[in-house]
Amino acid sequence: MLKIDRKEEQGVSRRQVLVGTSVFAAGAALGSLGGMIRPAHASEPAMKKWPWPYRKLDPARTAEIAYNEWYRVFCGAAVINAVFSQLKETVGEPYASFPADAFVFLEGGQLGWGTICGSAAGANIVANLIIGPRITGATEGHEIGADVMQWYSETELPTYTPKKPKITATLPTTISDSPLCHISVGRWMKAANKPLKSKERKDRCARVAASTAYHLVELLNRWKDGDYEASSDFSCAKENGITGQYNCMDCHGDNVPQPPMPKA
Amino acid sequence: MLKIDRKEEQGVSRRQVLVGTSVFAAGAALGSLGGMIRPAHASEPAMKKWPWPYRKLDPARTAEIAYNEWYRVFCGAAVINAVFSQLKETVGEPYASFPADAFVFLEGGQLGWGTICGSAAGANIVANLIIGPRITGATEGHEIGADVMQWYSETELPTYTPKKPKITATLPTTISDSPLCHISVGRWMKAANKPLKSKERKDRCARVAASTAYHLVELLNRWKDGDYEASSDFSCAKENGITGQYNCMDCHGDNVPQPPMPKA
Repeated sequence: MLKIDRKEEQGVSRRQVLVGTSVFAAGAALGSLGGMIRPAHASEPAMKKWPWPYRKLDPARTAEIAYNEWYRVFCGAAVINAVFSQLKETVGEPYASFPADAFVFLEGGQLGWGTICGSAAGANIVANLIIGPRITGATEGHEIGADVMQWYSETELPTYTPKKPKITATLPTTISDSPLCHISVGRWMKAANKPLKSKERKDRCARVAASTAYHLVELLNRWKDGDYEASSDFSCAKENGITGQYNCMDCHGDNVPQPPMPKA
Repeated sequence: MLKIDRKEEQGVSRRQVLVGTSVFAAGAALGSLGGMIRPAHASEPAMKKWPWPYRKLDPARTAEIAYNEWYRVFCGAAVINAVFSQLKETVGEPYASFPADAFVFLEGGQLGWGTICGSAAGANIVANLIIGPRITGATEGHEIGADVMQWYSETELPTYTPKKPKITATLPTTISDSPLCHISVGRWMKAANKPLKSKERKDRCARVAASTAYHLVELLNRWKDGDYEASSDFSCAKENGITGQYNCMDCHGDNVPQPPMPKA
C-alpha cells in the first residue's frame, strides 16, 4: 500500500522536518537498544535512501565527460552520466545501477518539443537524486536545481570550452533569459546564423551540457563541504500567482495578464 | 571508460539498429556456445537492461493511485509511482529499487518554473525507463512519450474523475495546446477563475496526473500486446527548423520568425 501523506505544496514546514527527525532519532535509538528494531526506511533499497554518498568531483573533468557524452546520449543524459560515471568509480552504488541512458529523451527540450533544456533537467535529476526530494526534509537538491535554472537563464552560454573541441572556430555565446530549449537554442541560432542541424549548433549544445555539468558540480562540492547557500531569488508563483519561466515579456510583451488571485 | 559513439541526433538509422542487433545476436550465440562468454551488457544491473519486464495494468486503478499520490509527491512523481508501485508488487525489480520520490522536483513545471508539465515529464520517464532509450534501437519509449505530449496538448483535461474526489464541485476542463505547465495551468485558472493556491486548482492538477497515468498505461498495454502504433505527427524541428512546442502563435502571434535554415 502507498502511504498517502498530505503536505502543503510549498515546502515541508520546519515542524514537519523536526517531527521527521525525531521519529528517525527515536527509531535509531530503539535500533541500537533492541538490536532488531530499526527505522522503517532502513530496509529500503540504497537508491531510496538519501543523501546518496557523494565524493567531490573535478568540475573541468566532469565538463569534458559531459561534452563527449553529448555526442552519444545528448544533453540531459550527458549531464547525468558526467557526474554518475565518475561516482560509479569512486563510490559504486547506487550510481552503478542508475539507468542514466534512459534519459536520452530529454534531448531537444524533451523529444524535440522545445520545453526545458535537457542540460537543466539533467542537473535537476542529479541534484535531487543525490540529495533527495524536499519532502524528505532536505531542501538543497531543490535549491541547487533552482540555482542551476537561474544561472542557465542569466549566463552567457556556453561558458566551457572543451580541451579538444570538435569545432575549432569560435562559437558565439548568448543569454537565453529562459530555461526553455526553444528559446535558448533559438537565440543562439539567431546570433550565430546557423541552422539547427549544423555541426556548430550541435557543438554549442554539447558545450552547454559541459558548462551546466561544471556549474552543477561546483554547487554539489560546496554542499558536500557544508558551504552551500541557495542563491536563486526567483519564485514566479509567489510574485505573480502562477508558475512561470524567467521571461514573462518574451511572450506577453508589455501586456502580461494578471491570473486569478486569492481574495484579500 | 565511457564508450563514445557518435550517432545522428535525429534517430538511429535502420542500419545502426541492424548492426546493433547483429552484435547482440553474435554475443548471444557465443554465450550459448561458450558457457562463460556473454554479451557485454549481460553483466549490467537489471535497471540498465531494456525493456524492463512489464505486466499490463488497469488504467483506472493506475489513475486512482496517481490522483492520491499527487497530494504526497505532486504531478511527476505521482505518475511514476502510480505505475511503478503496482509493478513493484507484480514484477518486483527493478521497480522496487527505482527512486521515484526523487522526482518531486518535476512539480509546477520543474520547481515551479512552469516548463514541461510534470505529468507529461513523468510519463516520458516511465515509458523510456520501461522500454529503453531510442539509442538502444527500441523507438517505442520515445514514441509513447511524444504521443502523450500531443494527447496532453490536444485534449480537454482532466479526462479522469476520481472515485472519491476531494473536490465535489464540477471542475472545468481546458485544452492547453501546449505541454507547458505555465500555459496548461494558466488556461485552466482563467476558465475556472481560481487562483494557483486554490484547492480546486490543486485538485485539477491531481486529476491531470491521473488522466495522464491512465492514458500512459493504455499505450503501454498496447505495446505489451504488440498492438502499439505511434500516432504523434508533430516534429517542430523537421517542419520549422527548430525545436518547439505545439503553439508557435501563442507567443509569436502571426509573426512567427524564420530560424536560420540549411542552404538549399
